[in-house]
Amino acid sequence: MHISSAFDSGNIKVINKDSNPIELAIGIDNQSDFYQWFHFRLEGEVGKQYPLRITNAGKAAYPAGWENYRVCASYDRHNWFRIDAQYDGNVLDFTVELDQPSIYLAYFAPFSWERHLDLLAWAQSDERVQAETLGLTLDGRDMTLLTIGNAETAKRKVWMIARQHPGESMAEWFVEGFLEALLDDANPAARSLLENTVFYVVPNMNPDGSVRGHLRTNAAGANLNREWQSPSMERSPEVYLVRERMLATGGDIFLDIHGDEALPYNFVAACEGIPGYDEKHAALENVFKQAYEKASPDFQTEHGYPLHGPGEANMNVGTNWCGHQFRTLALTLEMPFKDNADLPDTVEGWSPARSRQLAKDILFPIRETLAYMDGSN
Amino acid sequence: MHISSAFDSGNIKVINKDSNPIELAIGIDNQSDFYQWFHFRLEGEVGKQYPLRITNAGKAAYPAGWENYRVCASYDRHNWFRIDAQYDGNVLDFTVELDQPSIYLAYFAPFSWERHLDLLAWAQSDERVQAETLGLTLDGRDMTLLTIGNAETAKRKVWMIARQHPGESMAEWFVEGFLEALLDDANPAARSLLENTVFYVVPNMNPDGSVRGHLRTNAAGANLNREWQSPSMERSPEVYLVRERMLATGGDIFLDIHGDEALPYNFVAACEGIPGYDEKHAALENVFKQAYEKASPDFQTEHGYPLHGPGEANMNVGTNWCGHQFRTLALTLEMPFKDNADLPDTVEGWSPARSRQLAKDILFPIRETLAYMDGSN
Amino acid sequence: MHISSAFDSGNIKVINKDSNPIELAIGIDNQSDFYQWFHFRLEGEVGKQYPLRITNAGKAAYPAGWENYRVCASYDRHNWFRIDAQYDGNVLDFTVELDQPSIYLAYFAPFSWERHLDLLAWAQSDERVQAETLGLTLDGRDMTLLTIGNAETAKRKVWMIARQHPGESMAEWFVEGFLEALLDDANPAARSLLENTVFYVVPNMNPDGSVRGHLRTNAAGANLNREWQSPSMERSPEVYLVRERMLATGGDIFLDIHGDEALPYNFVAACEGIPGYDEKHAALENVFKQAYEKASPDFQTEHGYPLHGPGEANMNVGTNWCGHQFRTLALTLEMPFKDNADLPDTVEGWSPARSRQLAKDILFPIRETLAYMDGSN
Amino acid sequence: MHISSAFDSGNIKVINKDSNPIELAIGIDNQSDFYQWFHFRLEGEVGKQYPLRITNAGKAAYPAGWENYRVCASYDRHNWFRIDAQYDGNVLDFTVELDQPSIYLAYFAPFSWERHLDLLAWAQSDERVQAETLGLTLDGRDMTLLTIGNAETAKRKVWMIARQHPGESMAEWFVEGFLEALLDDANPAARSLLENTVFYVVPNMNPDGSVRGHLRTNAAGANLNREWQSPSMERSPEVYLVRERMLATGGDIFLDIHGDEALPYNFVAACEGIPGYDEKHAALENVFKQAYEKASPDFQTEHGYPLHGPGEANMNVGTNWCGHQFRTLALTLEMPFKDNADLPDTVEGWSPARSRQLAKDILFPIRETLAYMDGSN
Ligand SMILES: [Ca+2]
Ligand SMILES: [Ca+2]
Ligand SMILES: [Ca+2]
Ligand SMILES: [Ca+2]
Repeated sequence: MHISSAFDSGNIKVINKDSNPIELAIGIDNQSDFYQWFHFRLEGEVGKQYPLRITNAGKAAYPAGWENYRVCASYDRHNWFRIDAQYDGNVLDFTVELDQPSIYLAYFAPFSWERHLDLLAWAQSDERVQAETLGLTLDGRDMTLLTIGNAETAKRKVWMIARQHPGESMAEWFVEGFLEALLDDANPAARSLLENTVFYVVPNMNPDGSVRGHLRTNAAGANLNREWQSPSMERSPEVYLVRERMLATGGDIFLDIHGDEALPYNFVAACEGIPGYDEKHAALENVFKQAYEKASPDFQTEHGYPLHGPGEANMNVGTNWCGHQFRTLALTLEMPFKDNADLPDTVEGWSPARSRQLAKDILFPIRETLAYMDGSN
Repeated sequence: MHISSAFDSGNIKVINKDSNPIELAIGIDNQSDFYQWFHFRLEGEVGKQYPLRITNAGKAAYPAGWENYRVCASYDRHNWFRIDAQYDGNVLDFTVELDQPSIYLAYFAPFSWERHLDLLAWAQSDERVQAETLGLTLDGRDMTLLTIGNAETAKRKVWMIARQHPGESMAEWFVEGFLEALLDDANPAARSLLENTVFYVVPNMNPDGSVRGHLRTNAAGANLNREWQSPSMERSPEVYLVRERMLATGGDIFLDIHGDEALPYNFVAACEGIPGYDEKHAALENVFKQAYEKASPDFQTEHGYPLHGPGEANMNVGTNWCGHQFRTLALTLEMPFKDNADLPDTVEGWSPARSRQLAKDILFPIRETLAYMDGSN
Repeated sequence: MHISSAFDSGNIKVINKDSNPIELAIGIDNQSDFYQWFHFRLEGEVGKQYPLRITNAGKAAYPAGWENYRVCASYDRHNWFRIDAQYDGNVLDFTVELDQPSIYLAYFAPFSWERHLDLLAWAQSDERVQAETLGLTLDGRDMTLLTIGNAETAKRKVWMIARQHPGESMAEWFVEGFLEALLDDANPAARSLLENTVFYVVPNMNPDGSVRGHLRTNAAGANLNREWQSPSMERSPEVYLVRERMLATGGDIFLDIHGDEALPYNFVAACEGIPGYDEKHAALENVFKQAYEKASPDFQTEHGYPLHGPGEANMNVGTNWCGHQFRTLALTLEMPFKDNADLPDTVEGWSPARSRQLAKDILFPIRETLAYMDGSN
Repeated sequence: MHISSAFDSGNIKVINKDSNPIELAIGIDNQSDFYQWFHFRLEGEVGKQYPLRITNAGKAAYPAGWENYRVCASYDRHNWFRIDAQYDGNVLDFTVELDQPSIYLAYFAPFSWERHLDLLAWAQSDERVQAETLGLTLDGRDMTLLTIGNAETAKRKVWMIARQHPGESMAEWFVEGFLEALLDDANPAARSLLENTVFYVVPNMNPDGSVRGHLRTNAAGANLNREWQSPSMERSPEVYLVRERMLATGGDIFLDIHGDEALPYNFVAACEGIPGYDEKHAALENVFKQAYEKASPDFQTEHGYPLHGPGEANMNVGTNWCGHQFRTLALTLEMPFKDNADLPDTVEGWSPARSRQLAKDILFPIRETLAYMDGSN
């Protein structure tokens, strides 16, 4: 039996490979207390069962995330399925029976940096796309912004950023699906939108954390979604660079794509707790949410985060900062690590394919919201 | 220079290959006066221009179809683009300049019987699909019905038939897209629908006309969409067989997929002219049309056929017969041979890809209409 | 239970669908006594067994072909596998147990006319390929010749014709593989050959028989491989047209691709029985066969047809006519309907993929033979 | 203008981005003097020309490699083409004109670690393949050995290792092609070989150097192909682990896959300079080389390295050590970074596709050599 994680977004420590179950621990995000993302390969004998225990599950960032969680697994690194697990409040146990000599196991289907670069290379081949490096991360990777449509003539501006929390890989699967829909010449919603809207898309807000196999932070241990009031090039260049560009361009809709460890639903969180939150904010949220709910049975509004009281918002959170700064619709979209309990898939749970589809369906609420803004609805 | 059409849905006659322009005529549907579908291959010298004239264009079934029409062309039988044409009320002229030794030219991108069989073979691999031969056409081909979902437990039933008029190949591209969406495990709208709805889909209502290269009729010259009151196994077995099954199963929504030669828009025609047309009919039409309009900028309600006065409907038309027989929503969906003038594509015009996308988007109005029926909307 | 064959190359007659086993008969080639090709779809209940009997197997063209023969089957029309059968000298019995609602059964994996047209369309996209219609078959289909390489500068000429006997579909799978290898820019053998060799390839010598589901003849019942001395446009235009072009171009190697019903081996038959057969003929055959044997373990020289005595060759056979006319190497390549008994594949038997690979490997004996001709070997 | 290399195998330093030409330098392999591999992305304005200079080209490991060298470039990271360059003995100059917002430039088309893992995952899905981690590199990556065939029953053993020098990425493209051919069920040469031969394949001998963007060394600066007499887990675990396994298994043929910077040809280097080199060695080399030359016009024997005199071989080189240790055929296969001058491709030069094809063609000399060993030739 051999376990390895020396690859893109790999993260596991082998505590005891000779015990039964085999004892593992998730590595902690650099200079941080957060951890929950894991990704490793187990090599063994075909046909044999390997009981595995994540010994430090109970102290992970979101222990509730382990309740009813099922582990993501793949033999071919392409098709990911789920394996049952048991959580006792302390450790996470699951057993792998090998059909092939080795299997990949992860908190969610990974989206690698190589795939990220492939996505950018594909997108730039469309003449409507501008790909631009805003600057570098602390590890020296590119912070890339895609500008889609004509920024000079567009009437409306929509921002989408994803994966501030790098372990939430579904956020980049979502962006991949979104770009496919938006650049599909046969998609009338996309073509219609691009007639007078420009999209600013940051497919990966946290390259270093993604490659390092972090859950929530960048290379310096910064939780980027707590850096929006005063980001710095020293600690949080990822936010600094994007925020500067936002200030320069402005925007009408701000979407920040995330995954939630605990809740088995897709939902949005808004900026109801910011100073100056007003009827316009509320109305746009309603239009957006109702439209999304109509467009996709995978989206719902019943389950979600508790609302903030007036003025209680943490203004260092991207969505709150954007909603306040630009006095317009700003939403955090949360997808589950587990599944959508309203429409469960026992084989795959929530998946890359479903993340991509949810992204294709977001064109509808974007269109409805922009039409509402324009008074044409 | 050589012109050939001895293949699936091929149709052209060479009147004079030595004239300038080369004179062609479209073959007439067997035992019928209808013609407008053409499909042929032209072989010549790379780099040379070939002026072509369809000499009998002016007497085709829908002369208005030639106005602003652009010819469909393909070198590889996969990617289809448009070539400008001129119509003078009598003949249709267009010129082909060859980039490769031969080019396919057609009224619309063909959907072959081989592809039809591939589609059925693919669909049946999904365990939710039943594929069944209802009987045979006059040329002996199978009339296949796909039943998707659980007919015994389903609360609602939706029928979709396509290509009564065989030259309207976009109708089967539409069905292909519809089946892809409906059977996509990552599509929540499809999964949600299939929880309590059964779909009855006839991908091709007119196999013989399709293979023969007809515009509007079956092998015996019957316009199937004028046979619904008293079809017979001798003259119109295609309608007879499907109609019998409809009578046995009933249904809540009936969709008949077509193409329109003249109008450059996607639209539906309803059964407002049938006896007994009532508020329920009207309300369902409204719900469906408004939802479709929201879902797809390629669908609209401004342009379409003139409405029938009360009782003036031709009851031999499938939609009218269904709307009357089942006292529920029955619609003819019309896609353009030309383009959607609201969202034109100068390279491809209306296309297989756009037909497929319009089909994916029809899940939305179906869901909204069924929800309305259930009072949950 | 339903059986249908109204599609490209379909051939079966249902004698008694209520008997046990279900009684079938293969249709006879039009105006001919030959039959052995079958191709049909069986629709039934998933999980149920369907015993089938081909009642006229014993009088087919090659009864020995049924000995140890296993039926080709496919659910998706793409992947073909084998089903055991029993032959008692009179009837062929086999049983199908359905995993899906319908299954395709055939004498060998079919190669449709649509795929033929796709192959030509793909080939012509390579600028080294000329695609040309030599004339029409009796049913009006195109007889297409592909000229690959520069006919004006080439030092050597190689002819390949395939599927004179239309039921030998492996012959066109072979041509597809050959063209893929020959036009592959990364294949040095192909690039090297094309520097000074021109290839004349007729992918399908018998379009009408192929579409009609014949075993051995064209639309008029002519066995094309018995027409080479005096073909006519009335009876055998397929041979007439190709033979005229051969006479105009000449050639250094002539390859005629076939399938053999009885022998479970790949082998070639030469023209040792023609008048004027000489040492050059024999030497070239030896070079070719030894090289092919080295290149592919699927080719062998032990098993094959009995040799003709001097002067006993049937000069109406294509290979004999070519060998005599052009005083050079002319070979009939035979692939098995069954399997290569030296390297059996219990799942697929002889297959499209193996036919294609055998074609890729024929570049080697072609190169060796041409080098021998040039004295450079 | 922006240049980035913070990705798999990235390597460039920007010396002066404001000069004309832009001044670059290749980074030196860690703890080493070697450098020549580069790989970076240039982002700029579409339509604009960017003159680039590699200022330290003249002191690279193989300055002759720059003569007539053309730079590899790709917009989509999939299709790689060549750009002309000028070398004056000191610096390498080339100019990029952007068709898209960014372009990748590399010494040769890269083969990433992600692709390496995909290759292993694909290979292990074949039941004839055992995938096994022999141990770890200094950076902690897996050293993976694929065992293909039945090691217990096989009569012969063939070893293939690749990419000891990590910048020679063509070596892993070669292995990818080799595995595709060897595991192709329709390939009779592969099926025949696997009846009585077992293959031991190490697709990447130098994972750390590959990911780091090195030319010739591992993470510790060791040139692995100079470590075979006394490798250590501290300095060269990659060689240590593989060598130990070789000693345990033995072997009949040893192939070490490389790229050569200077010579525009494919060729092999043998172990003629080792003590004990004898007629058996020489005979096997001859059989192998002659067979390979026949199989592939991309292989030749005229150009290559000067022969070592008797006893003058460097026994730390893998091929020499293997040839001596196992007293059998051991060869270094060299592919060009430039092109095969005998069969040049002006668009792509030597390429991944051609490396893969050369690997498919190596089955032939392997079979011929094993047959010779068995006396059956
Ligand atoms: Ca989050
Ligand atoms: Ca119509
Ligand atoms: Ca034959
Ligand atoms: Ca080397």
